[in-house]
Amino acid sequence: MMDAKNDIDGLIERLAPDMAAVNDIILRQLKSQSLLSEKIANHLISSGGKRLRPVVVLASAHLSGLKDMTAAHKMAAAIEIMHTATLLHDDVVDESDKRRNQPSAHILWGNAAAILVGDFLLGRAFELMVEVGSLEALRILSASASIISEGEVMQLDLKGAMSIKEAEMMKVIAAKTASLFAAAAETAAILADLPPPQRQGLRDFGFNLGMAFQLMDDALDYDGASSQFGKPPGTDFFEGKITLPLILCYRKAGPAERTFLAERIENPQSSKPSDLKKTCKLIHKYDTLISTRDFAVGYIEKAKAQLKDFNDPLWLAQFEIVGAT
Amino acid sequence: MMDAKNDIDGLIERLAPDMAAVNDIILRQLKSQSLLSEKIANHLISSGGKRLRPVVVLASAHLSGLKDMTAAHKMAAAIEIMHTATLLHDDVVDESDKRRNQPSAHILWGNAAAILVGDFLLGRAFELMVEVGSLEALRILSASASIISEGEVMQLDLKGAMSIKEAEMMKVIAAKTASLFAAAAETAAILADLPPPQRQGLRDFGFNLGMAFQLMDDALDYDGASSQFGKPPGTDFFEGKITLPLILCYRKAGPAERTFLAERIENPQSSKPSDLKKTCKLIHKYDTLISTRDFAVGYIEKAKAQLKDFNDPLWLAQFEIVGAT
Repeated sequence: MMDAKNDIDGLIERLAPDMAAVNDIILRQLKSQSLLSEKIANHLISSGGKRLRPVVVLASAHLSGLKDMTAAHKMAAAIEIMHTATLLHDDVVDESDKRRNQPSAHILWGNAAAILVGDFLLGRAFELMVEVGSLEALRILSASASIISEGEVMQLDLKGAMSIKEAEMMKVIAAKTASLFAAAAETAAILADLPPPQRQGLRDFGFNLGMAFQLMDDALDYDGASSQFGKPPGTDFFEGKITLPLILCYRKAGPAERTFLAERIENPQSSKPSDLKKTCKLIHKYDTLISTRDFAVGYIEKAKAQLKDFNDPLWLAQFEIVGAT
Repeated sequence: MMDAKNDIDGLIERLAPDMAAVNDIILRQLKSQSLLSEKIANHLISSGGKRLRPVVVLASAHLSGLKDMTAAHKMAAAIEIMHTATLLHDDVVDESDKRRNQPSAHILWGNAAAILVGDFLLGRAFELMVEVGSLEALRILSASASIISEGEVMQLDLKGAMSIKEAEMMKVIAAKTASLFAAAAETAAILADLPPPQRQGLRDFGFNLGMAFQLMDDALDYDGASSQFGKPPGTDFFEGKITLPLILCYRKAGPAERTFLAERIENPQSSKPSDLKKTCKLIHKYDTLISTRDFAVGYIEKAKAQLKDFNDPLWLAQFEIVGAT
């Protein structure tokens, strides 16, 4: 673990000048003739966050041997702005009160402003992508924008469906999370003009990394040590969101336990902290945090396998970011 | 007026084959792996609507002498899909119960689905624009996407500000409505590869037409005969939305009338039909529907002036669409 930590530090240090450039572009891009839009956009984007997607763009660009990083900086900024737009809308959709340990935008400024500023950010993200000037990258990112929303609607549509299959769950995660990670890695390959097999390799890498990341995030919701990530534990639970640890647990549970779980997920607004505690105990009893992490590890292995041809130690550190969470 | 009507019929007849192609593209573009997304998107897009923005694209393309209309059809479809996305979000933001004489999407499927399907449509619109392959058109339309949202936030920010100046109001209308009309006309000029002065002329034409259209729409809200347009009269009033007829009326009103108007706009949820009636009477007393229409006519004249170089009778009909409302 100490080695992994050192690797992460090494990666972040190595990308620090790039990340500074990306942050400058993001702040420039949030300027608006509507001061309220600017304020709300800044609230969320300046509140930290892991900036994982820009990291994927930047590291993929270096790995691809891109010399001039200007376009990659813009692309990384555009993808982070696009991601921020989806977070603004997600918080309205999920009625989440907090994001990154701060009150959500819709709590501070209302749903209407949060929705509209999300749209503003999506527009700004596309403006920046257009500035980069690659139609191929635009094709991938606009498709990803549609797919993310489809994934979110599929998740909404799942509400209460405790007996869904893993494959169905993975389809949702692929759409709402992994597609943007895949696009982040692939656009870097496009900027570096990599040949098709390597480009596909980077895309698959990003996709599998995104799958692993979302599964770890879903597991953390039922893990007491998760508050360090800005999302209070039980966020998904109190929103009635169906995730893998929960559906695996439901499958193994006895009849009384099933009734309890189904009721909590159908009426999350009446769930109490003691209900979360009981659910965590069931998840522990049936070891489904561990099975969820096993799925994640499987995706990390797939991601790693894509990078054999690249042979760059930088990426090993990247895996550890996910593996160490 | 009979002549105007005949001109409109002539225009619509002339554009019918183009519009059929546009509708086919729209329907194809709404297909989704999430059936719920597809259903919600279809609900709004199939409910009629004036399809004014596609008309502007198509007529501008013909006027520009574009021979192969394939790209213009896609562009017209993309702009209509983008517009539909903003309508879905606007109805959530404004808490509007009806759209085009049907229950709004958020009433039928909830706010969450309406927000997410709006995002889905925005993504789909960009996918289609990318398919057309003009970076220049993409630049204009992505800028327009940001500007529309900024305009909506500015409008939100105005809530209750009854003493704002016309210039401020016009800035909001320019952003939330006219910018997309301007983009619709300009993208057609880009596809036809027109020289810069004519391209700017078409852009200005679209902009002024959009200004006129929005002002007429704002006037209709206080006009008893407006139900034919799908928006019940008083929609803006019962949402506490500040529009030109209202601020002009407020400026001319006496102290007691001002108090009444300000209270109604600050507490629209407690407004009764009799309050709308009283407001309409005040608007009639101070002739501010007429002054609003005068502003609209001024913009139509500016729009017309842009088209002298084109000399195409098609457009005279187009103006009548707005002038006749």
